[in-house]
Amino acid sequence: MTFKTTGHIFVTMGRIGHCRQHILAAGTEVLYQKGYNGTGVKEITTAAGVPKGSFYNHFESKEAFVIEALEAVAAQHEEHSRAVLMGSDLSPKQRILNFFDGIHQDYKSEEFNGGCIIGNLCLEMADENEGIRATVDKLFNKQVSLIADCLRAAQDCGELCCEHCNCAELAEFIHCAWEGAVMRMKASRNCQPFTIFRNQLEQFFV
Amino acid sequence: MTFKTTGHIFVTMGRIGHCRQHILAAGTEVLYQKGYNGTGVKEITTAAGVPKGSFYNHFESKEAFVIEALEAVAAQHEEHSRAVLMGSDLSPKQRILNFFDGIHQDYKSEEFNGGCIIGNLCLEMADENEGIRATVDKLFNKQVSLIADCLRAAQDCGELCCEHCNCAELAEFIHCAWEGAVMRMKASRNCQPFTIFRNQLEQFFV
Repeated sequence: MTFKTTGHIFVTMGRIGHCRQHILAAGTEVLYQKGYNGTGVKEITTAAGVPKGSFYNHFESKEAFVIEALEAVAAQHEEHSRAVLMGSDLSPKQRILNFFDGIHQDYKSEEFNGGCIIGNLCLEMADENEGIRATVDKLFNKQVSLIADCLRAAQDCGELCCEHCNCAELAEFIHCAWEGAVMRMKASRNCQPFTIFRNQLEQFFV
Repeated sequence: MTFKTTGHIFVTMGRIGHCRQHILAAGTEVLYQKGYNGTGVKEITTAAGVPKGSFYNHFESKEAFVIEALEAVAAQHEEHSRAVLMGSDLSPKQRILNFFDGIHQDYKSEEFNGGCIIGNLCLEMADENEGIRATVDKLFNKQVSLIADCLRAAQDCGELCCEHCNCAELAEFIHCAWEGAVMRMKASRNCQPFTIFRNQLEQFFV
């Protein structure tokens, strides 16, 4: 399929693209709050203010929508993570602490609703849906990889307690503890799990 | 309300109790696999092989059923945890390592399906349902408390690296890392997240 390069077609393409992004953004919000099984196509299109039928003009299925929503959220998160973890003159230790402080502030401002959409969909859907499982696994690995890079930078400048430890494994462990702390904050509705995570995180550094 | 102590009434009470426990056990299995929103009353009664209407003879609502299922799973888990963490002549360090090794073996034998039902329902339902959130929070606190007791015993006999650290906080952190590792195993479908958790866990001990 080719598009003619007329003004009309560009406008139409723009509208289609805009509508698609709009459904994606509005539907992602619903997905955050209600999970996969709690989010019907009707709820996605109602949130976006578009007719139900228009969903299938843009997405093959709810599964395809959810995988695209996960990829979009993760891409935004990756850009932000890369900027905080790698893109400043602060020491690697300070960048990691700032990274988790920042995400925690976001969760706190949402009163611990929502949480990590990747973790939420992992626990709800990994057993049931192979496409979502594989996507979630890939996105977790990307997150861990960025933390590992920053830990290696910390190790190189003598900021890590363990001079020779495997930073990929330490990053995986810290990431697991973080996902667990996000889970605990959804249950406790207070910052205590984060405060404990933060105190323990500092113990890995000199 | 009082029950007459005739044989007939005892048998009737037994049948009601048996049916209730049967629905609870069969429905909990469905809940493990499909989560709250993926599990309808119809699916619970189909799994139990009883008519749909009979569900409401025993449970006020799906929410009430789920809270009772959570409490029942947690009570079984607590009994097992107490036996492994506190009830043997092994050293506290070895008891904690055995504890996590044992749960991991259970998950592995299920090919990482299911996972932690408390964690699963926390991420799916804590934002949506206050009764489930409060139950999950209470049950998490009980689990952490048992781990903290064993860590204190380890600290008392010089097995912990940190001689004066707060064992309640360390238990919370380890528990978070464990819940995160269970999440990661659901995504990766292999033991690597557990192996990393296990290696890091050992670092807390001398």
